[in-house]
Formats: sequence, structure tokens, C-alpha cells
Amino acid sequence: MYSVQVRSHIMIAHSLPGEFFGPAARKHGATYVIDAELRRAELDSHNVVIDIGLALRLLGEIAESLSYHDLDDDPRFAGKLTTTEFLARFVHDELRERLGEAFDGTIRITLHESHVASASYEGGR
Amino acid sequence: MYSVQVRSHIMIAHSLPGEFFGPAARKHGATYVIDAELRRAELDSHNVVIDIGLALRLLGEIAESLSYHDLDDDPRFAGKLTTTEFLARFVHDELRERLGEAFDGTIRITLHESHVASASYEGGR
Amino acid sequence: MYSVQVRSHIMIAHSLPGEFFGPAARKHGATYVIDAELRRAELDSHNVVIDIGLALRLLGEIAESLSYHDLDDDPRFAGKLTTTEFLARFVHDELRERLGEAFDGTIRITLHESHVASASYEGGR
Amino acid sequence: MYSVQVRSHIMIAHSLPGEFFGPAARKHGATYVIDAELRRAELDSHNVVIDIGLALRLLGEIAESLSYHDLDDDPRFAGKLTTTEFLARFVHDELRERLGEAFDGTIRITLHESHVASASYEGGR
Amino acid sequence: MYSVQVRSHIMIAHSLPGEFFGPAARKHGATYVIDAELRRAELDSHNVVIDIGLALRLLGEIAESLSYHDLDDDPRFAGKLTTTEFLARFVHDELRERLGEAFDGTIRITLHESHVASASYEGGR
Amino acid sequence: MYSVQVRSHIMIAHSLPGEFFGPAARKHGATYVIDAELRRAELDSHNVVIDIGLALRLLGEIAESLSYHDLDDDPRFAGKLTTTEFLARFVHDELRERLGEAFDGTIRITLHESHVASASYEGGR
Repeated sequence: MYSVQVRSHIMIAHSLPGEFFGPAARKHGATYVIDAELRRAELDSHNVVIDIGLALRLLGEIAESLSYHDLDDDPRFAGKLTTTEFLARFVHDELRERLGEAFDGTIRITLHESHVASASYEGGR
Repeated sequence: MYSVQVRSHIMIAHSLPGEFFGPAARKHGATYVIDAELRRAELDSHNVVIDIGLALRLLGEIAESLSYHDLDDDPRFAGKLTTTEFLARFVHDELRERLGEAFDGTIRITLHESHVASASYEGGR
Repeated sequence: MYSVQVRSHIMIAHSLPGEFFGPAARKHGATYVIDAELRRAELDSHNVVIDIGLALRLLGEIAESLSYHDLDDDPRFAGKLTTTEFLARFVHDELRERLGEAFDGTIRITLHESHVASASYEGGR
Repeated sequence: MYSVQVRSHIMIAHSLPGEFFGPAARKHGATYVIDAELRRAELDSHNVVIDIGLALRLLGEIAESLSYHDLDDDPRFAGKLTTTEFLARFVHDELRERLGEAFDGTIRITLHESHVASASYEGGR
Repeated sequence: MYSVQVRSHIMIAHSLPGEFFGPAARKHGATYVIDAELRRAELDSHNVVIDIGLALRLLGEIAESLSYHDLDDDPRFAGKLTTTEFLARFVHDELRERLGEAFDGTIRITLHESHVASASYEGGR
Repeated sequence: MYSVQVRSHIMIAHSLPGEFFGPAARKHGATYVIDAELRRAELDSHNVVIDIGLALRLLGEIAESLSYHDLDDDPRFAGKLTTTEFLARFVHDELRERLGEAFDGTIRITLHESHVASASYEGGR
């Protein structure tokens, strides 16, 4: 099994309404350092899992579509609890869709929210 | 598959008797930076893998029960070789027990003993 | 010259009004991992720069007073541009004041806003 | 499942001929920080996955055989595209062979080529 | 004293002729993760040390002018020993020149060549 | 001003007697990741601050003389409080002495005791 991992980041505001989330129910924000790991059983004819330039460009586009936004006002997330886990899944789905036929393996997205906490979503095609 | 990861650390003394361990047979010590990764197939109704505050609190309690101890004098480890692998398993079992019904997924514990070495234990319920 | 460094973090929302800041003029947020370095020429009678437990507690109190806040709505920052540099200075001044007579050396505060950018403020008494 | 992870690094020159690789078709180089993770279902009688000293020594020998080389002139890689993925597999195979009977578990090799990109190969016996 | 720090990286080939450098006399290569720290006594009217976007863009341009090059064949370095220290100074001078009137403070450039070694150059105007 | 930085680590046991140190008065231990930064105003004829191989070898010798020891039983530290600050000074003095005429600049030693705390000593000749 081979994999490549690339990194980007976003800076967003949001709130997590509900008693469950304690102080995070208030409007606050986060830097999410995003790691995207792409896994496949075999390399292609160029000896790579994927064109790393393509992976970086697509992850960068997704980051740009999220960064410097207040997710509470973003129609994509209306009525959603934008937890770190949820956002990891969102980035996964966006990357999967943008890659399309270019990648048919497993994708694991990790969002580091601080030096002591992170969340991931991993999905196969 | 979703996961969350939280971090804590302990500072302990111990020795690893036996020729096999070379200089580590002498009384020495370690800082173990502990990563606990909790994995589940689905999110709960709050869009989380687990209440991250609960995970942090329980990992912190386990860390406190170990830190600033000489494991050679700790009855919990009498007659045991407290290798990094063994301690990763110990933290896993402690966290599993303290979580109880609150978490039924996979737990992976990693103990980083320096910038060049670590060990992990991963177990399902 | 001796120093000790301790780490905490905050998660905040804010905006930086003005064309100068580009997309950061919009409401967004950040995780700031905060390093506080305290420097003195000599150690005290306990062979330390400062009681590290005190330093951690005070930095934690400052972090708690900022974290999970929207700085745009915080009276402490009314009419201020809450850039990373400005916030580094704010944390410095707060830590200096809370330390009071307990520390008379140099304090350097660094706020890491991502894996590729940070800002610092350093001041002597 | 238990694992141990050890780290080493190499500094090499190479080129990746072909339009596909863009500027990397030119002679350039890389520091690869190498993580070797060794995984087994059970610990041995010493409560370890493997003699960590042996793992470090063997990984160090492989690193020494690669470091400060121009891979384009290395007969081991004649006619090969020495991508990060390919090199991760090469290190895996070398470590597997050198370990021989001493380790029968899974080995995962990760080569970090910068603070934003890495590649891995993972194989079982 | 305030500072901001931004990060980029380059991947280059080179050799360091002479017995002094041991195996590094051979053609090899390195990833240099580059940190540029810019320091000034006071903030400007935007509460920043410098337009961080400008600093990132200029550091990126310098990185692009070096990355994927064999420094042994680069006329800018003819007859020079391109040690990490030397390259830190080179990046400093390039950044100083490109910033021009936009920055009159101290610049410190650090090149990390691995997880265990780095070199820096720091200069005032 | 130029500098080079190299890294090593030690794993030791010790205790810090006295009410002041709270739970650290008990026998415990630490991994100290050690960074040695060597600074000089000018490079030598090889375009380096110092032979980095020499710096690594000497720092490694000092690490070996400390690692896997119980500092409470080490005659070098009889009657001393082996705080992180104190040990940073000790490593500085050892490195200064071993370098002798080979280095006449400033040396800064940092001991990282966890992911959230470190201490340094810096001295000129």
C-alpha cells in the first residue's frame, strides 16, 4: 500500500450551538492545518500515487473556498454543526469530487485544531 | 471512518532489567507525550466521535496517575517490564475502562519517547 | 542568560477591517498556539528562572480569558486591529502584570497562527 | 496491535525525467526524514515489538547507503524513477531483508520530503 | 520588539568539495525549510511588522529562484561553498533587497536541513 | 550573525527535593531533547560556523555521559537541584570545554522536557 500526504490550512470563524459544546457554543474560530493522505495499492506509470501538484492545487482550492469565512453564515453549512470531524468529512468529499477519475483510492483528511487536538475522516471510493 | 486525537504527557522513572535492554537496565526516565486516537464508523447526534472534553479529562486523569512516579516502585507494575509498548497498552486499557459505555470504537495510544522514537497500541472493543 | 518556555493555546474569532488585510477583513478565526519565554540572567535559590507551575497557571488564565471569544465584540479590543503582533503584545502585558514582583526579567510571547506563520513581542521590565 | 516507530534521514540528489514532473525533471535534491513503523499483533518475551536498537541500527545502515548520493548515478536505480513513493518502497524492502527472521510483522516506511509533503509504503510479510 | 515569521522551502542539489566536508563532498541534495523572521521595534499604522502577504510572496519568489536547481551549475554560486550558513545569508540578502524601503528592521533566516540540524543568518540594515 | 543548531537527546531519572517542586519532589524522569545553537559573527574559510560533524559528535558524547542515569546518584550532581535550567547550563559548560579552541562564539543550549515546556542557557566565551 502506497500513500502521499500533502498539507494546507484554513482560518475560519464558527460557533457550535448547544450546551454540549460548553464555551465553544460562543462565536470563536480556529486555524485548521489540513493533511490529506491519498492511498492506493499500486503506483501508476510515473511511479507515483497521484500527481502531487494536482493534489496540492485541489486541496489549495478547497482551502481557499473555506478560509477567512464565518461558517455560521455559509449556506453550505446551514443547519449543520461544523465540528472538526464534520469539516474533515466535508474536505474529504470535496477533494474526492474534484479528483474525480484521477484517483480511485482511499482518502484520509486530518484537521489539526491545535498542538493537542485533531480529527480525521477516512473514506474509500 | 472518523477519529479524534488528543494529547497529554507524563514524566516517569523506571528501569528495564535484563541484558537485552543494555544501558536502559539502569534506573533512568522518560517524558512520554501521549496521543490517544479514538475511532468510530459514524458520528453521534452532536457530529462528534466523542465529547472531546471528556476524552481530555480522562486522559489527563490517567496521566496524573502515572506522572512523577518511579514505575519500579508502583504496585501496578510489579514484576512487569514497563517498556513503551507495554505502557501504551496500559494507557489504552485504562482509557477503555474509564470511557465505559461512552465509547465503543477503536482506541490507538501512541507514546512518543523522543523526537526519534515512539510506540503504539491499538485495540477494538 | 537562562530562560524557560511554556505553551498554551486559544481559539478566537475576529476580523481585520481595511483593504490592507485582503480576505482577512472578513470575520474569520484562528488557533493561536502561545509560547511564553521568560528570561533572566541568574537562577533563583531553587535553581529555576521562575516557578514553572505559576507561569503555566497564569498563561492558562490569560488563555481562558481570550479563548472562545469573538474579539470584535470584546470591549478590551474596541477600536483596535487585533493582529497577531498586537495580540502577542497583549498577552505579554497581561502576563507581566499578573507576574508582578514574581518576575523581573524579559518576556517573549510568540503566537503561532499556522504551520507557516507566527508573530512575537518581546519586552523587558 | 502494537507498533514501534524509529526515525533517521538521508540527503540525496536526483532528477525525475519527463514532462510530468515539471521542474523536478531538473537535477535537484531532497532531505528525506525517514520514519519506519514496525507492527505486530503481540509483544515478545521482552515486552517489545522488536529490539529497538536493532531497528535503529539497520535503518541507519540503509540511510548511510543512500545519503550523500546522486541517485541518478546509482546502479541500484538505473532506469528507475526515484519518486518519494518508490524510495519508500525501496527502504521497506531493504529493511525487511536486513531484519530477516527477526521480524515477521507489517512495516510502514514514510519519507517526509518537506514540512508539507510526504509519501509512504506499507507491506506485510 | 515585534517580529513576524513566515515559512517556505526549497529542494536543491549541490556538493561541498574538499576533504573537510567528508561524504558531503559528493553530489547530494537537501530540502531546506526556510524560516524568515522580520523584527522591528514598533508596529506600523496597520498594527503589523510588515504586510505578511508581501513577505510570503517575496520569500516564495526567492524559493522559486532556487528550488529544483543544482547549485553547482548555478552562475550565482560559481566558486562558492554553498553551505547551509552561506545559503541562509544568500536568502537574507535577497529578501533584504526585494523588500527595499518596505522594511528597515532585522531579518533572521533559518534553513532547517533535517529534523536534527539547521543554520541561520541574522542581519540588521 | 551566523548560527548552526544540532539536536540530540537524553533519558534520565531524578528528583527535585523540596516543597517548592510539588510532585516533582518524587523520583521521576524525563526525556530531554537537546538543541545546541552555536553563534559567531563570521564564517570560517570553509563557509561554516563550525565543523557540524564535530559539534554533533561532542554533543552526542555529552548526551551519552548523561543518558540512562539516575542523576540523584551521579557524583557530578551531588547536593545540586538538577532542574532543566541547571542541566541546560551543565550541557553548555561541557560543550564549551570540549570545543576548547575550536569555537569562540556564543552557545545556547535548550532542553525540551515535553511538547509544552523547555528551558535554555546561553553564554558567551
